[in-house]
Amino acid sequence: TPVFDHAEHQHIRYNPLRDTWVLVSAHRMKRPWKGQVEKPPEENIPRHDPLNPLCPGATRVNGEVNPEYDNTFVFDNDFPALQPDSPEPGVSDHPLFQVRAATGVCKVMCFHPWSDITLPLMQISEIKNVIEKWMELIWELGEKYPWVQIFENKGSMMGCSNPHPHCQVWASNFLPNEPSLADRCQRDYYKKNGIPMLLDYANQESQRKVRMVVENEDWIVVVPYWATWPFQTLLLPRRHVLRLIDLTGKEKESLASIMKRLLTKYDNLFEIAFPYSMGWHGAPTGIHLKEDMNHWQLHAHYYPPLLRSATIRKFMVGYEMLAQEQRDLTPEQAAERLRNLSEEHYAMKRQ
Amino acid sequence: TPVFDHAEHQHIRYNPLRDTWVLVSAHRMKRPWKGQVEKPPEENIPRHDPLNPLCPGATRVNGEVNPEYDNTFVFDNDFPALQPDSPEPGVSDHPLFQVRAATGVCKVMCFHPWSDITLPLMQISEIKNVIEKWMELIWELGEKYPWVQIFENKGSMMGCSNPHPHCQVWASNFLPNEPSLADRCQRDYYKKNGIPMLLDYANQESQRKVRMVVENEDWIVVVPYWATWPFQTLLLPRRHVLRLIDLTGKEKESLASIMKRLLTKYDNLFEIAFPYSMGWHGAPTGIHLKEDMNHWQLHAHYYPPLLRSATIRKFMVGYEMLAQEQRDLTPEQAAERLRNLSEEHYAMKRQ
Ligand SMILES: O=P(O)(O)O[C@H]1O[C@H](CO)[C@@H](O)[C@H](O)[C@H]1O
Ligand SMILES: O=P(O)(O)O[C@H]1O[C@H](CO)[C@@H](O)[C@H](O)[C@H]1O
Repeated sequence: TPVFDHAEHQHIRYNPLRDTWVLVSAHRMKRPWKGQVEKPPEENIPRHDPLNPLCPGATRVNGEVNPEYDNTFVFDNDFPALQPDSPEPGVSDHPLFQVRAATGVCKVMCFHPWSDITLPLMQISEIKNVIEKWMELIWELGEKYPWVQIFENKGSMMGCSNPHPHCQVWASNFLPNEPSLADRCQRDYYKKNGIPMLLDYANQESQRKVRMVVENEDWIVVVPYWATWPFQTLLLPRRHVLRLIDLTGKEKESLASIMKRLLTKYDNLFEIAFPYSMGWHGAPTGIHLKEDMNHWQLHAHYYPPLLRSATIRKFMVGYEMLAQEQRDLTPEQAAERLRNLSEEHYAMKRQ
Repeated sequence: TPVFDHAEHQHIRYNPLRDTWVLVSAHRMKRPWKGQVEKPPEENIPRHDPLNPLCPGATRVNGEVNPEYDNTFVFDNDFPALQPDSPEPGVSDHPLFQVRAATGVCKVMCFHPWSDITLPLMQISEIKNVIEKWMELIWELGEKYPWVQIFENKGSMMGCSNPHPHCQVWASNFLPNEPSLADRCQRDYYKKNGIPMLLDYANQESQRKVRMVVENEDWIVVVPYWATWPFQTLLLPRRHVLRLIDLTGKEKESLASIMKRLLTKYDNLFEIAFPYSMGWHGAPTGIHLKEDMNHWQLHAHYYPPLLRSATIRKFMVGYEMLAQEQRDLTPEQAAERLRNLSEEHYAMKRQ
């Protein structure tokens, strides 16, 4: 039998943050694709559209008029999945029919007054404003709610219905599935190994280098060993940081810088505004602010759907939904491709 | 405060098969959709295309020629994610970098010689042939492998790259994430309650009726209490059945019939060939064939992506990927809509 080669031989890898496995079958990249192709992202977005409810000065569906903001702008989602008040559903009559009240708040945050700009094309100082607003929102909503989920759906392929650069913030009275799993896994690791899992991981990846995409003094971005999406990345601080609100001034600056570098590479990969969903996971807030949460390490996940080109995505369907996630190139191959891309945005070169 | 109403007030429901929760916010259906619209499924598919590798008599990429089959037809996937032989990856040097060998087999199974037919339009006897072939494959591959995943990706929206009616069968030397979770949850329930979870559940739903879509003497189909996809369903036997191979002749017949009724309703919902991923979960096989697996109950999951119309899907993105799945109509609303649909296929009425 031949010697094991990650890029040739199928194998499964363990995801210690979710306690699951991923099937890696890199040889599958050889298969031709005859299925659905995606529409590449819209290219000619007007800078200002008075009918776009995210633009400065526009009127929203509830009749409110947006201010003429020139930085970030936060408002309550007009169709919130979580509202602050909700009656109690009462006690379940059977273990298979369990229900609980859910309360919370959903906010929308515009990154910039222009509709035709994206994070990688913004100034570092402007990205820093976004980070500072994120911190404020964690402060404000985290006082009351145990979980504040900051996330960005970018591109229509990721269910985003408005091209204006923005993210969302959903705070809830419960710890959702994903953070509650991440809490359990990090807690177990800390108990067993005496070091926060993702701090240990960042140390390891800084030495191993093969999955590194970009790094600076305070942060690293890797394609994690257990990545499921083709070009998935994990953004990690080098020091032990529990929450976004714990960042120093210097770390905010270097975070803005590394985000710009990562997102520029993403856009350069297929020379389009690269679609993804991203989000922040930090130690739970609310009543947990006073608990020992040292097993936690702040991190951001980037989940981009594209696989082969601007129009060919990875489908997480049948086998993935019913059995286990499967990927068609190794994390090392993905990291190498991203690492070798220019840090100058393709749209800037064209000018 | 008002009285709690599932259809008006957000809440979370527990999924006892996955030990997770889903956020139900039915009031979100009121929001207008301005995002991506999907291409409706292709309507004019040729009955026979000699260049389609799934058709009778066609030549596949490896040079093999398909027989002139007139029933079902099974062959090895030409781009398998799992192959029978693979060298051992060696021992991991760190708990965060765990890898294991994966071996297995990937097969493709054509349902019918025609490319322009789908399961709901096939005769009950033809659907029964499909079920019998599924049973054969579980026998054959289940002898060696602990998990044999039968799944169908239907429609290009679900990553299906060939309109010819077919499913796939991936057998692996490991128990994948989803069945391993289902195993744990069913085992715990059985220990605690002394009855297989999904047998108890089918009994309950047969009495409660509100989530019932179709039923017959041997089977029920419900929108499960914890459904995440808008029109997700769960197909369950009424009696305790471990695996597909344990079905009686009568149960095969009634399964073919209930599948035809369910899939006809699905197609009638938006008058298109309704896309979905579906798959079977039965007790693990291989070495588990000799173990006590009485906590298991055979079931099939249907995960269809559409939400509002033939062209507007539910996106499971940012919040769903990073925090928790969220749905925009209640399972009871979805069940009622499906239940009220005709059992005569719209394409038959048109003729
Ligand atoms: O095997 P196919 O049909 O080419 O591929 C499809 O199903 C597979 C199993 O769910 C997925 O991994 C692929 O992403 C999807 O496109
Ligand atoms: O809130 P939006 O942008 O209208 O909606 C988008 O993000 C939500 C949160 O991930 C999802 O539930 C929706 O399916 C998606 O279309």
